Amino acid sequence: MSNDEREEVGLLDAVDDIHGGVIVELKGPMDCKTFVSSLRASLSHWRQQGIRGVWIKLPIELSHLVQPAVQEGFCYHHAEPTYLMLVYWIPVSENTLPINATHRVCIGAFVMNEKREVLVVQEKCGILRGSGIWKFPTGVLEQGEDIFAGAIREVKEETGIETDFLEVLAFRQNHGAFFGKSDLFFVCMLLPLSSEIHKQESEIEAAAWMPVEEFAAQPFVKKHELLKYILDLGLAKADRNYSGFTPLSISSAFSEELSFLYLNSRGL
Amino acid sequence: MSNDEREEVGLLDAVDDIHGGVIVELKGPMDCKTFVSSLRASLSHWRQQGIRGVWIKLPIELSHLVQPAVQEGFCYHHAEPTYLMLVYWIPVSENTLPINATHRVCIGAFVMNEKREVLVVQEKCGILRGSGIWKFPTGVLEQGEDIFAGAIREVKEETGIETDFLEVLAFRQNHGAFFGKSDLFFVCMLLPLSSEIHKQESEIEAAAWMPVEEFAAQPFVKKHELLKYILDLGLAKADRNYSGFTPLSISSAFSEELSFLYLNSRGL
Repeated sequence: MSNDEREEVGLLDAVDDIHGGVIVELKGPMDCKTFVSSLRASLSHWRQQGIRGVWIKLPIELSHLVQPAVQEGFCYHHAEPTYLMLVYWIPVSENTLPINATHRVCIGAFVMNEKREVLVVQEKCGILRGSGIWKFPTGVLEQGEDIFAGAIREVKEETGIETDFLEVLAFRQNHGAFFGKSDLFFVCMLLPLSSEIHKQESEIEAAAWMPVEEFAAQPFVKKHELLKYILDLGLAKADRNYSGFTPLSISSAFSEELSFLYLNSRGL
Repeated sequence: MSNDEREEVGLLDAVDDIHGGVIVELKGPMDCKTFVSSLRASLSHWRQQGIRGVWIKLPIELSHLVQPAVQEGFCYHHAEPTYLMLVYWIPVSENTLPINATHRVCIGAFVMNEKREVLVVQEKCGILRGSGIWKFPTGVLEQGEDIFAGAIREVKEETGIETDFLEVLAFRQNHGAFFGKSDLFFVCMLLPLSSEIHKQESEIEAAAWMPVEEFAAQPFVKKHELLKYILDLGLAKADRNYSGFTPLSISSAFSEELSFLYLNSRGL
């Protein structure tokens, strides 16, 4: 293709990424034919430039361009409700594209008051629905949410109880629970700041303060190893000398963003 | 639509999920027109049954059905290289669909030998390329990989050194580093079982055993708070009484799968 022809076709707008690739973020309306011509001209241009990974972010409004992109050799990389990210690896050398997000992050909350009652719920949905089994409040982190903030939010949403975050007592990693993805489940201990329960209507059947011995006596708790550990760890922290990880705000050398490092602060 | 007509159109094959929804996994070839007719008939059927979430898993070979599904009201949920998962929420009540995976999981490895030398690398790619900066081996977990296994693998791949996993010393959560997703970075301490370095050609510029004081004296380490903590925590573990989390295999009440709980085993 001559330079003149390329001018006529028009290359796709792209910005460089830090790994020697380019990102195309399509926004306005575009018909299939224009897209395919521009994409072919752009790929030829990028190949000459030694570009490696080519990313195309297609908003869901442009779903008619998914098939043409796939026909030009693109694969899916990841998707969110409003867009699909496609990617194409140009060189013949080994593909070093970053992998998609692999984990969902969940929290479980151990909250015990001065009367040694633990905060427990029965769920309206999921595997324990209708079982009458009392469990600790649990939930899934929202995108961009910190672990300690998610634990405080879930306890508040499900039971109405205000809490202070104390420690991550432990965490469990398991695989394949959800669309082939993995879960990281953080066991959190929180201190109650209020006592009156207001349960969530949509998801929670019942919420209560329950004497910890009564909770421990449930047959389900006895046969559920993770639940038993949450209980043991919570009591080890409350009564003995257990040290989990506490969050500490730290800065990054590469950005202005603060993030949290969770560590055993007693050991440093 | 009468029962006869529905028979003629043919409903999509679907299996129930545990949350009151259905999952359609399209496999064979299908043209757009047949797909749209079957999808409409199926949605009408599921609506009458009180189904809530409808999932469609479209292999990349069927990318021509993405646009028709979106036109019928489906959104994207997630994607992997070979398929796109779409979802449609039928009822008028609040959408309780599970969220897509939100985190990538990374590991950093503190490996120190008996001569108090730490295992360090210079990278060929990324933000530190060409800077001459020595850093700890780091990497991203593969889908389905355990944290301790990923740490052992990355050290072996980058440096050729065999290790035993000792502890998670700390972890850091940060947001927005990667396509709006979050990272969980686990600081791992490993014990070296071999000493001869064989560096990885594709990603590693150099690998070495370096006296820990020399590593600590690098200006980059002094201004990089996370790196400084990795060093402090590794030394606190090696020289003093620091307790991180060790992995313990536990069973689940719901499946045959074993998973790992990481906890402070000294505190229990």
